[in-house]
Amino acid sequence: MDTVPADDRGLTLGVGLFETLRVVDGRPAHWAAHLDRMTRGCAALGLPPPDRAACAAAAAQALAEAGLTAGQAALRLTWTGGSGDRGLAAPSVARPRLLATAARIGAPPDGVSLATVSVRRNPTSPASRFKTLNYLDNVQARREAVAAGADEALMLDTEGHLACAAAANVFWLEGERLCTPALGCGVLDGIVRGLAIALAPAHGFPVDQVRAPPARLLAGQGGFTTNSLQGAVVVGSIDRVAMPDGGPKLSALLAAIRAAAERTI
Amino acid sequence: MDTVPADDRGLTLGVGLFETLRVVDGRPAHWAAHLDRMTRGCAALGLPPPDRAACAAAAAQALAEAGLTAGQAALRLTWTGGSGDRGLAAPSVARPRLLATAARIGAPPDGVSLATVSVRRNPTSPASRFKTLNYLDNVQARREAVAAGADEALMLDTEGHLACAAAANVFWLEGERLCTPALGCGVLDGIVRGLAIALAPAHGFPVDQVRAPPARLLAGQGGFTTNSLQGAVVVGSIDRVAMPDGGPKLSALLAAIRAAAERTI
Repeated sequence: MDTVPADDRGLTLGVGLFETLRVVDGRPAHWAAHLDRMTRGCAALGLPPPDRAACAAAAAQALAEAGLTAGQAALRLTWTGGSGDRGLAAPSVARPRLLATAARIGAPPDGVSLATVSVRRNPTSPASRFKTLNYLDNVQARREAVAAGADEALMLDTEGHLACAAAANVFWLEGERLCTPALGCGVLDGIVRGLAIALAPAHGFPVDQVRAPPARLLAGQGGFTTNSLQGAVVVGSIDRVAMPDGGPKLSALLAAIRAAAERTI
Repeated sequence: MDTVPADDRGLTLGVGLFETLRVVDGRPAHWAAHLDRMTRGCAALGLPPPDRAACAAAAAQALAEAGLTAGQAALRLTWTGGSGDRGLAAPSVARPRLLATAARIGAPPDGVSLATVSVRRNPTSPASRFKTLNYLDNVQARREAVAAGADEALMLDTEGHLACAAAANVFWLEGERLCTPALGCGVLDGIVRGLAIALAPAHGFPVDQVRAPPARLLAGQGGFTTNSLQGAVVVGSIDRVAMPDGGPKLSALLAAIRAAAERTI
């Protein structure tokens, strides 16, 4: 197990970023897209971006050490703020630390139950737009959902618009249109969210990125969540109310999203 | 330098809490109040609270190792989420780690200039109510203020009410009344904030905890910030507009707050 000095601003203040990637037979899916997102996050946080060759080497080492060069795995890359003195001010030269860990993952669930939670997404915070080391709200949202008997949280933004799950983006059907919360609703710019938006029109679903109240999702004809490790998962219920399954056309889109999420080229 | 395993949820997710205490001649000020606040934070985050004798021993060791048993120092106690597996779910038994660091501090500044920043406080987030390891918003707020030529940030909450500075609570005078944002505005329940509220009436200032637009602070007859390391500091300007000094009665209150903030009994 790697260790990090206790003065790393990733630990003391949550300054830093991470990416979680799907790995298939030792090859990470959507590598460039994940590293691009981390690089955008670095710009927002004032950190130098990681060297991509170093990331690749760390990833390969983590996968090899965990014996995960075959089958499905999750790879996490963490880029910390680096050591700093007491207080909020960054060191004159930030020296982030790169960490890589890998773990085996199973098949995604057939469906996910959502529960609306009290913790909301803050669109003014960089932590809502980037995958930062400030994940406490997500942790708390998930805890609240599980305590309510659900699998996952449905989070609103601070203005009450639909936002996302604790570890996924959210989509739903309004007739033939596929809706998902706009990035301005405190939503992570998910890699698989982007794949879903790109794939949906060819499957007969024009896409709307919306600022919408929860009632619109609850009235949807089907819904799903997306993230890198699970691809796309049908929403089975929201706050214990069953959600329609969206029919075969939606199932076909979900299969296409799942296949795209695993692409390692 | 202590190290922390890379799978500690304090680093990976920002699950954990900290306290920063003033130390005078080796003795921490308001020890019980700080530990009480950390204990409340633990309850909110689902962590066991730290053992107080262990905190005292770690604090004493950190101060001794840093040669800070005389004079003024800052002591930071950190209580991490402890090691966990991949994902948001907490381990069945959380085993937090306790860290203590100490650093010398100088005299507080004579005044502080504030700049209103774009990052806002989220009253629905536990990170706004407790001193958690999710401090990225505070770091970003400070960066934005410094980039604007100010010393410190003035943060609003997501509804646009006055909230706090990046590392301090905020007070201002409206005639004879002393105002400070209510805790519901995404404000940390500061130890010195509490001292100021307790001391002000005897100095002729009734206190209002308010949900107020920024214009009320800008129209104030004087203002100050409070935190554990600096006590109380006069606000010299907000967004480059000078603030009145509040007169001798306010100065007397600030002196009383500063003295109270250093109390080690």
